[in-house]
Amino acid sequence: MTPGRSERAAGPALLAVRTAVRDLLAAHPALRDAPLVVACSGGADSLALAAATAHLARGRGLRVRARVVDHGLQRGSAEVAERAAAQLDELGYTDVRVLPVQVTGGGGPEAAARRARYAALDADRPDGSAVLLGHTRDDQAETVLLGLGRGSGARSIAGMRPWSPPWARPLLDVPRGTTERACAEAGLTPWQDPHNGESRFTRVRLRTAVLPLLEDVLNGGVAGALARTARQLREDADALDEVAAAVRAQVERGADLDARALAEHPPALRRRVLRGWLLERGVAEVSDAHLRAADALAGAWRGQGPHALPGGFVLRRTHGTLQVERGGRGTAGRVIGG
Amino acid sequence: MTPGRSERAAGPALLAVRTAVRDLLAAHPALRDAPLVVACSGGADSLALAAATAHLARGRGLRVRARVVDHGLQRGSAEVAERAAAQLDELGYTDVRVLPVQVTGGGGPEAAARRARYAALDADRPDGSAVLLGHTRDDQAETVLLGLGRGSGARSIAGMRPWSPPWARPLLDVPRGTTERACAEAGLTPWQDPHNGESRFTRVRLRTAVLPLLEDVLNGGVAGALARTARQLREDADALDEVAAAVRAQVERGADLDARALAEHPPALRRRVLRGWLLERGVAEVSDAHLRAADALAGAWRGQGPHALPGGFVLRRTHGTLQVERGGRGTAGRVIGG
Repeated sequence: MTPGRSERAAGPALLAVRTAVRDLLAAHPALRDAPLVVACSGGADSLALAAATAHLARGRGLRVRARVVDHGLQRGSAEVAERAAAQLDELGYTDVRVLPVQVTGGGGPEAAARRARYAALDADRPDGSAVLLGHTRDDQAETVLLGLGRGSGARSIAGMRPWSPPWARPLLDVPRGTTERACAEAGLTPWQDPHNGESRFTRVRLRTAVLPLLEDVLNGGVAGALARTARQLREDADALDEVAAAVRAQVERGADLDARALAEHPPALRRRVLRGWLLERGVAEVSDAHLRAADALAGAWRGQGPHALPGGFVLRRTHGTLQVERGGRGTAGRVIGG
Repeated sequence: MTPGRSERAAGPALLAVRTAVRDLLAAHPALRDAPLVVACSGGADSLALAAATAHLARGRGLRVRARVVDHGLQRGSAEVAERAAAQLDELGYTDVRVLPVQVTGGGGPEAAARRARYAALDADRPDGSAVLLGHTRDDQAETVLLGLGRGSGARSIAGMRPWSPPWARPLLDVPRGTTERACAEAGLTPWQDPHNGESRFTRVRLRTAVLPLLEDVLNGGVAGALARTARQLREDADALDEVAAAVRAQVERGADLDARALAEHPPALRRRVLRGWLLERGVAEVSDAHLRAADALAGAWRGQGPHALPGGFVLRRTHGTLQVERGGRGTAGRVIGG
């Protein structure tokens, strides 16, 4: 890193962003020696992240890469990417590249752009590296609300993880307003994504309409509350996964499960054990309805017949053990609705 | 029960409400022989509940009590209560009473009315009885959103329980629109609470502004998704509580806890063990910040000094065990922020 412009000013917002980056790197041993890549769109969040990371890298004598993804979705996107790259040069980054991507596939324009972006960043990064992303507390709040709308349990509202290799998100507790002030303090002019005003994007509507209304109705603090909830749910889910792994080790009998031993455990743990086991046995889709029906063979046993699962699999209970097989005899049992 | 008006018509909505009541009673053994009390405001939800319960009670030869709470908050509330009581008479209830209450105390008008209502219903009910309440899937969705705004973890967004003695809520999976249609099918005219149009009430604004906007932005299904999420979070929380109780039994050493043994478990479990232990040792308020600081004495031990807790309690680690005492030596340790 060469000396950069962010050195000239370090007001409270920029200091807060630097602290967030430093704390995340310190909290995860795997991040301490990993080569770092900063992903920067030129927007306030990732520009503030890049400025803070440049400072830390200089202090530690690290060389940090910076990458700008050009999604090619808007007229002039190449110029926007070049401008972001120029700002990264000014911040002192010596290894700056623009990665052009093709946005294709289903699931809506936001999901397609995200897939293309992550794939390009992952393909470009060196082995063992971590990619720093500028998601803020507000992005986390939007993610939690999106997950709520899916209604698929704790995992769907647990939000983004601060460190999910190779992706590091140091700013998940930093409000968006702080990144904007940090850019101002550092003399940086962030790019304003015109998509941020387009109400056809779900996330934009959550940001500009739903969250402000919720803030008003619930007397403020909603983004922080959603981020705190997400953190606690992640920790709860991690604990349940760990306990479920221990339970599974106790109840596995070769390729089968001991249904009576499984029945000793609470339903949420039983379903986690069954989910992991069914996925490993090759059952690709395991909905909540499937899991509850499968669980009834252990937790609510009344001599039920076999259950059909997607992909031609059949789950049956025989002599107190659960077995899953593809096709074969007895597939006439009750079919489980998706 | 005497034959009642709801016998004359049983369209699909009324059948759905009856099924919901029957399913809840069947799902909980404690409810099968409990004397039942239906709480009815005269509004669509509890009137549909009363109609469905009257039908089931007749079929089973049960005598079910019906109670109407008069909050005395609106002009003419006594007439509204009498009108609800008259509708319950018509439905065949032979033991109908109006319970007048005094709404006092803090926490906002909705919370004060709720406290007064639950206290009156609890004081009036016979021993071992269950009180059926008309909360719908929409009420559950509002409760989840309110809990999200508090940001205090899974318990605060896990919503209301279908059976939390003595309160039974059979309609938590039934949309409000179904109770309204059920009343129409039964020829009942529900009371429209004028408070439901008053935007000074948080719940009213969630119902009339936030949820419809979320439905629009997230393409529908939000109330159902919130109710599903609440159910899964309740089950997850129950499983964690059960596992935490087992962990606590392993790590308790008389009045103290074995910090090293506790540290073997994941953070979400450690904090649950610590919370239960501190509450039993007399520490009245245990915030998430306190729990995380207390947990550092087990999970992130670096020779820290004692920690001050509210109420003059001090938590310390000595020779690998955690002890909590009121006052005494060493209270000069770092004070934990609320």
